[in-house]
Amino acid sequence: MELLDGRLVKKEILNKLKEEVAHLDRSPGLVVVQVGEDPASNVYVGQKEKMAKELGYQYSHVKLVSDVTQEKIEEVIDGLNADETVDGIIVQMPLPKQLDTKRIQNLIRVDKDVDGLSDMNAGKLIHNEDALMPCTPKGIMDILEYYQIDVEGKNVVIVGRSDLVGKPLAAMMLNKNATVTVCHSKTVNLAHYTKQADILVAAVGKKNIITPDMVKDGAVIIDVGINRIDGKLYGDVDFEGVKDKVSYITPVPGGVGQMTVAELAKNVLKAYHNIEK
Amino acid sequence: MELLDGRLVKKEILNKLKEEVAHLDRSPGLVVVQVGEDPASNVYVGQKEKMAKELGYQYSHVKLVSDVTQEKIEEVIDGLNADETVDGIIVQMPLPKQLDTKRIQNLIRVDKDVDGLSDMNAGKLIHNEDALMPCTPKGIMDILEYYQIDVEGKNVVIVGRSDLVGKPLAAMMLNKNATVTVCHSKTVNLAHYTKQADILVAAVGKKNIITPDMVKDGAVIIDVGINRIDGKLYGDVDFEGVKDKVSYITPVPGGVGQMTVAELAKNVLKAYHNIEK
Repeated sequence: MELLDGRLVKKEILNKLKEEVAHLDRSPGLVVVQVGEDPASNVYVGQKEKMAKELGYQYSHVKLVSDVTQEKIEEVIDGLNADETVDGIIVQMPLPKQLDTKRIQNLIRVDKDVDGLSDMNAGKLIHNEDALMPCTPKGIMDILEYYQIDVEGKNVVIVGRSDLVGKPLAAMMLNKNATVTVCHSKTVNLAHYTKQADILVAAVGKKNIITPDMVKDGAVIIDVGINRIDGKLYGDVDFEGVKDKVSYITPVPGGVGQMTVAELAKNVLKAYHNIEK
Repeated sequence: MELLDGRLVKKEILNKLKEEVAHLDRSPGLVVVQVGEDPASNVYVGQKEKMAKELGYQYSHVKLVSDVTQEKIEEVIDGLNADETVDGIIVQMPLPKQLDTKRIQNLIRVDKDVDGLSDMNAGKLIHNEDALMPCTPKGIMDILEYYQIDVEGKNVVIVGRSDLVGKPLAAMMLNKNATVTVCHSKTVNLAHYTKQADILVAAVGKKNIITPDMVKDGAVIIDVGINRIDGKLYGDVDFEGVKDKVSYITPVPGGVGQMTVAELAKNVLKAYHNIEK
């Protein structure tokens, strides 16, 4: 078994980006819009800020009060859409209930939507066109590429169908010629599918939902789960149980989770180039 | 074995629509834009016109010369987008090479895009939001619903990944809680997947690509293929070979192909209601 080391792939990506950014005329601009003071959101926003500063991006953080109105946040986004120094806009999720999350995600200019969550970017992805794509599934594709694991013709089984991971990953895998199966909470006999997977992706958010009997010998396992229990992190896969029968596996932590910020950094640079064109 | 009779379902849909349209203040307006004189396109456009007249839709046919410029066709679409009497716009495919098909499809107003081929409507569909959806896969869902074949939890295998059928159908099936596998030309061992399907959809365009050994006993077979050979129509499925082992099957002709125009009629009415709102 070989570990798929997200930290290593992340470092590679960030080093390459840093070098590229150093040669640009203008620093790519990233703005994170945060509503309220959710502690988890604070951590994620902090990671983005750290990445941006490390790469020499122009970073700003717009903090809105937790009872901000829809009108006000739309005004903020309109301003950022029009601002020529801003290449990428992120609205940190989740948003408080008074706000229309979907509408806000779709208000961000398509070419500044570096989280790739808008309907438009999702449509471009499924149509296999150039798009800004969601960061976590993009990170999975980059880990596989780094380790030269070809997906063409492979039986790829994705467990979980979120707009953030499962669905966009299915599109990316299909665009790379994998045969793709999407399983979820309504799937009957989950193990029947997972046991056949050459590449098995678990993106459910439930500790140990993938047990050794559900995994084919020699499979590649991508564990997207981040389950915090009593202060410890667990994936969706019973790592100890499966590690001796698989060919590759992403650890938790240190696997897919590492990639999200690196992919965001890539998206910001992509947005920069699209806008500069 | 029971035949899934597309003609019957189509008739039901059109009768219901006709009644509904009779009570509207204004006739829903459909415009078909056709470039050149492709004989197959002439047939398809004729079917749409016939449907529109039957239902009492306001129909018009914009015919452009085959060497029309991109600028000119964009001007036409801009005009139709702005026209309040036009609810649905179709640009008949395929377009000649000098035209940017993707750009034209995405130029149609999202709420008038009754073919559902724009990136925006594809994104809404994959995000399980209200969308105008492509007609052929929508027709498949309606046939299944008519015959009360529930897809939730079923193993649905779709062979073919076109933007017109395979991909949007995968999204529709996933939204209805099926477990969905998408196979295609790069799939290794196609029969391995098709043999497990509770519901098998063949949308390849190759006569007899699905043979009896590739089909599970009691499966539901949806044949989207329309292959014209020596003036005769064939599906993608070896109908004679599989008919005695399956529970349901769509004939060719008389199956899925019947549904496309009926679903277009539904989309036009949906667009009408969205615009009238």
